[in-house]
Amino acid sequence: MKRVKVSRKAHFNAAHRLYRKDWSDAQNEAQFGKCSNPHYHGHNYELIVSVEGEIDPETGYVMDMKVLKDYIKSEVEDAFDHKNLNIEVPEFKNLIPSAENMVVVIHDKLKKILSPGQTMEVVLYETPRNFVTYTEQA
Amino acid sequence: MKRVKVSRKAHFNAAHRLYRKDWSDAQNEAQFGKCSNPHYHGHNYELIVSVEGEIDPETGYVMDMKVLKDYIKSEVEDAFDHKNLNIEVPEFKNLIPSAENMVVVIHDKLKKILSPGQTMEVVLYETPRNFVTYTEQA
Amino acid sequence: MKRVKVSRKAHFNAAHRLYRKDWSDAQNEAQFGKCSNPHYHGHNYELIVSVEGEIDPETGYVMDMKVLKDYIKSEVEDAFDHKNLNIEVPEFKNLIPSAENMVVVIHDKLKKILSPGQTMEVVLYETPRNFVTYTEQA
Amino acid sequence: MKRVKVSRKAHFNAAHRLYRKDWSDAQNEAQFGKCSNPHYHGHNYELIVSVEGEIDPETGYVMDMKVLKDYIKSEVEDAFDHKNLNIEVPEFKNLIPSAENMVVVIHDKLKKILSPGQTMEVVLYETPRNFVTYTEQA
Amino acid sequence: MKRVKVSRKAHFNAAHRLYRKDWSDAQNEAQFGKCSNPHYHGHNYELIVSVEGEIDPETGYVMDMKVLKDYIKSEVEDAFDHKNLNIEVPEFKNLIPSAENMVVVIHDKLKKILSPGQTMEVVLYETPRNFVTYTEQA
Amino acid sequence: MKRVKVSRKAHFNAAHRLYRKDWSDAQNEAQFGKCSNPHYHGHNYELIVSVEGEIDPETGYVMDMKVLKDYIKSEVEDAFDHKNLNIEVPEFKNLIPSAENMVVVIHDKLKKILSPGQTMEVVLYETPRNFVTYTEQA
Repeated sequence: MKRVKVSRKAHFNAAHRLYRKDWSDAQNEAQFGKCSNPHYHGHNYELIVSVEGEIDPETGYVMDMKVLKDYIKSEVEDAFDHKNLNIEVPEFKNLIPSAENMVVVIHDKLKKILSPGQTMEVVLYETPRNFVTYTEQA
Repeated sequence: MKRVKVSRKAHFNAAHRLYRKDWSDAQNEAQFGKCSNPHYHGHNYELIVSVEGEIDPETGYVMDMKVLKDYIKSEVEDAFDHKNLNIEVPEFKNLIPSAENMVVVIHDKLKKILSPGQTMEVVLYETPRNFVTYTEQA
Repeated sequence: MKRVKVSRKAHFNAAHRLYRKDWSDAQNEAQFGKCSNPHYHGHNYELIVSVEGEIDPETGYVMDMKVLKDYIKSEVEDAFDHKNLNIEVPEFKNLIPSAENMVVVIHDKLKKILSPGQTMEVVLYETPRNFVTYTEQA
Repeated sequence: MKRVKVSRKAHFNAAHRLYRKDWSDAQNEAQFGKCSNPHYHGHNYELIVSVEGEIDPETGYVMDMKVLKDYIKSEVEDAFDHKNLNIEVPEFKNLIPSAENMVVVIHDKLKKILSPGQTMEVVLYETPRNFVTYTEQA
Repeated sequence: MKRVKVSRKAHFNAAHRLYRKDWSDAQNEAQFGKCSNPHYHGHNYELIVSVEGEIDPETGYVMDMKVLKDYIKSEVEDAFDHKNLNIEVPEFKNLIPSAENMVVVIHDKLKKILSPGQTMEVVLYETPRNFVTYTEQA
Repeated sequence: MKRVKVSRKAHFNAAHRLYRKDWSDAQNEAQFGKCSNPHYHGHNYELIVSVEGEIDPETGYVMDMKVLKDYIKSEVEDAFDHKNLNIEVPEFKNLIPSAENMVVVIHDKLKKILSPGQTMEVVLYETPRNFVTYTEQA
């Protein structure tokens, strides 16, 4: 069967701050600029999760999109939405919540849904003009 | 010459229903949920067709986008637009019109336009939040 | 207090057909073209519901958007999504489901949520390039 | 001369929290739900500022869009971007930063740019699905 | 019958230059900046044409959108697309092709399609962040 | 470390004309149609520049997006915006400014920012429906 990639968009809002605890405020300001504001700032994150695999000839599906949608909701939206990423999300207790680190964390949370032979790609928009992509290699 | 991918968006509206003729209504409902509604439902499908190949140094084109646009219109838009996919489109008489199957069917219809050394990718949005991608391997 | 308009987007997919039962197929074809296809076609409808009113100084809200979102879901999305509008939605048993008629029907279903002094506007996108607007006069 | 409305889009990111200082945490949670998270959450705010007035026959402009763009930047983007609205923006020290209150505050900051006979409308998207509009009456 | 507004999006590309023939290059540069570049620059213009009127109870239409689409094509798209507005479009021989003047010219070209009691609104996007609106008063 | 792709959108407006100086007007018209209009036409070009590389564990960045944004501005936006590509941009003095040639030229201008082990992809939208992609191979 042909390999096809199925993709689902999701959405969450969160506050975050880019900084290293082991750096001074001045060092953080020099490296991260206004993104290191100690009072936090926030984003509407747009998420696109894609699963690539063979089409199941019985159903015409690579993966039931309803199942994927519900899994994204429980693993990512419920965990991140309306949260302060630095304070309330355990994965970022000791990891800077940059978009690059976030997309890898999200991939790690979601990849358990894959069947053998399937791979996952995750795209995360931090703003309409800035986004990051993590593509798992087959 | 450098290889570049040129892409063209197109659009069609259609009704469809996901179900297997050899399954009972209860089986179809269990597998496909409201997508198996016997009275049909429908979508505005957004289509992106991409051709990858070398730039022709004489024209600066990989492929004339006007030619690609007209070919998509005659092969896909005229065949699918304002149609009931299950009843009126021959390719889906015995094939479930899932987005995955549709994107492969569309690729099969369009690939005849390629010159040697060119490959094609097709993306199909079933809704603004659900889409599928079929990428032909070189 | 200042009057502000708060707006919420929603989404549903449906099949429909434009035709009059009292006209012949030829008359319907002449008037509605491919939109009168007896086998139906469909759309992803995008809906924007706006409520205009004074800001409540206690909460800073005109209307709680969560309440509006849930009301749109129960009154419109649950009633129309993945349905055949002509067959399965009672309001269109004897009313052509044109976008114009749909936007008035949706306004009628939703206006019960308004408080005195509030007015409602409804916008319905039938395709990304065609949409209709009904604005209730104060 | 004909009256025309000219519109300019802008963008900022911020953190905020919806709550009343004179209410208990339980009261705030009951009213504002997860929007009252004490650790804040955030948004990418999209802003559309429109000025309606007569076309200047000498320039063909209602207002020079470059001037409007620069004014939005100095009055709104520089004041709000990458900020915590509750803590760092003086207008919200004692005013809940709901989208409704924000759009009125933004209008108040920007209306000084208007010439006699011109009016201003401000639209603020808090998320791609939630937005508010304040239209000054002529 | 209820009054509803039906809207149709269209698209054209064109080159233009903002300048007054009776001004020196320096005056034009001071007023219009890089928009007065003597070698021209260009835009993808997005157009939204809306007709407001009563719903025809026989068809459920305010206006047949196919008729409106074809009229926009013949009056605006065919006249402006891939053209140099200053040189090739007669309406701008002696009128600066600012977005404000363009939206009034487009309204004048299209308003002949209206039936008694109908009004027209035209929105013109010069870029994704700059747009203008002309609303005919009833 | 995981390899992630970071992407940044930018924007410029320009006029251009597709033609070969060594062909007659009739030959150019036959090959390029209205795109060869001697008076030029124009576009709002949307640009997406992506850099793929390993995440720097110290900062959580593949590349500082502010640095990438500023580099795109100085190398591409300042060089192309509000310009006539054929006349005012040296790279197109003897190269047809087709989207395919433009995307390769832009990649050549921007690739100097890459660190060892990083690769770059450039996407250029000529219109909302036509775009091209150049992906540098690792």
